[in-house]
Amino acid sequence: MVIKPMLAYVRTLLTEVLNEGDVAVDATVGNGHDTLFLAQLVGESGRVYGFDIQAEALASARARLEEAGVAERAAFFLESHAEMREFVPAGVKAVTFNLGYLPGGDLSVVTTEASTVPALQAALDLLVPGGILSVMLYAGHDEGKVESEAVLDWAHHLHKKEAHVLMYRFWNQKNSPPILLAIEKRGRL
Amino acid sequence: MVIKPMLAYVRTLLTEVLNEGDVAVDATVGNGHDTLFLAQLVGESGRVYGFDIQAEALASARARLEEAGVAERAAFFLESHAEMREFVPAGVKAVTFNLGYLPGGDLSVVTTEASTVPALQAALDLLVPGGILSVMLYAGHDEGKVESEAVLDWAHHLHKKEAHVLMYRFWNQKNSPPILLAIEKRGRL
Repeated sequence: MVIKPMLAYVRTLLTEVLNEGDVAVDATVGNGHDTLFLAQLVGESGRVYGFDIQAEALASARARLEEAGVAERAAFFLESHAEMREFVPAGVKAVTFNLGYLPGGDLSVVTTEASTVPALQAALDLLVPGGILSVMLYAGHDEGKVESEAVLDWAHHLHKKEAHVLMYRFWNQKNSPPILLAIEKRGRL
Repeated sequence: MVIKPMLAYVRTLLTEVLNEGDVAVDATVGNGHDTLFLAQLVGESGRVYGFDIQAEALASARARLEEAGVAERAAFFLESHAEMREFVPAGVKAVTFNLGYLPGGDLSVVTTEASTVPALQAALDLLVPGGILSVMLYAGHDEGKVESEAVLDWAHHLHKKEAHVLMYRFWNQKNSPPILLAIEKRGRL
């Protein structure tokens, strides 16, 4: 396939932007797949800050990173990603959001626009120019529809001098396929 | 910029898919920029079929390819791209559409959905599996808005087993920025 599937496309961007020693944030740790990917990219001298409000998610993610021998590169916070400014230093190169619910977890615990939009703004503020903020949106459940619309509205109104906002989505899939926003920070307004 | 601008992204796909000796189609020759790019990719043993309904466009494009020393790789047709089946053999690896009007030309001569949608279907039929059909949509003028909606509707209804349809667009630009559809042929239904 010449056209990259969504996850492969995100990972290409993250691979291009992240180098040994960089700082990255996984704003929605979940089962830790993205956290592990980020930890591998930032190397031994880099750091990944991971957020989730479910302890079982963080435990699962930590186990995944331990198994891969890279747990010391990550710091996990049982906190809302909307609070990331309190825990993450400025100078972040990449932040990933994978919205919705924890696969295999409690389906009633979902991200919602009330915290997601402030968290996205915090992430954008923490990024260095040239840094990447990736957001996977799922509109297939009711809260996801409301949340996706709020995120799309927020991103639509970002000033073009502040960020490039790319929408990357497959247009002929059924049942509300995910939408990716890839946001590249330009300057600070 | 890590996120590729639209034209650079299209050219990356075309570069990946086209090799020496391949056949490509520029369905909207215009001033011939895409025709030249395709001719360079298919090499001396390849072939580019170019369509435009304005003779001045074809003359300008042919001059551009002559200047680059690659005019013998292209065949130009003063015909609607909706007729491409009559002139192009099967086995095409890539087709490009850049809809709207000829830059610097007669603004009253625009592509319209009546011919564009049949032309897109013909292009998809001519492609080999793995081939790429790229479509740049401009909704900034009245006919463009109607045409874009028709094309988006056509693409939305392509069966996922027939093609992957990627939408690639910048989400925070003003004044109806272009939308790219990158369509990768899978099988023939």
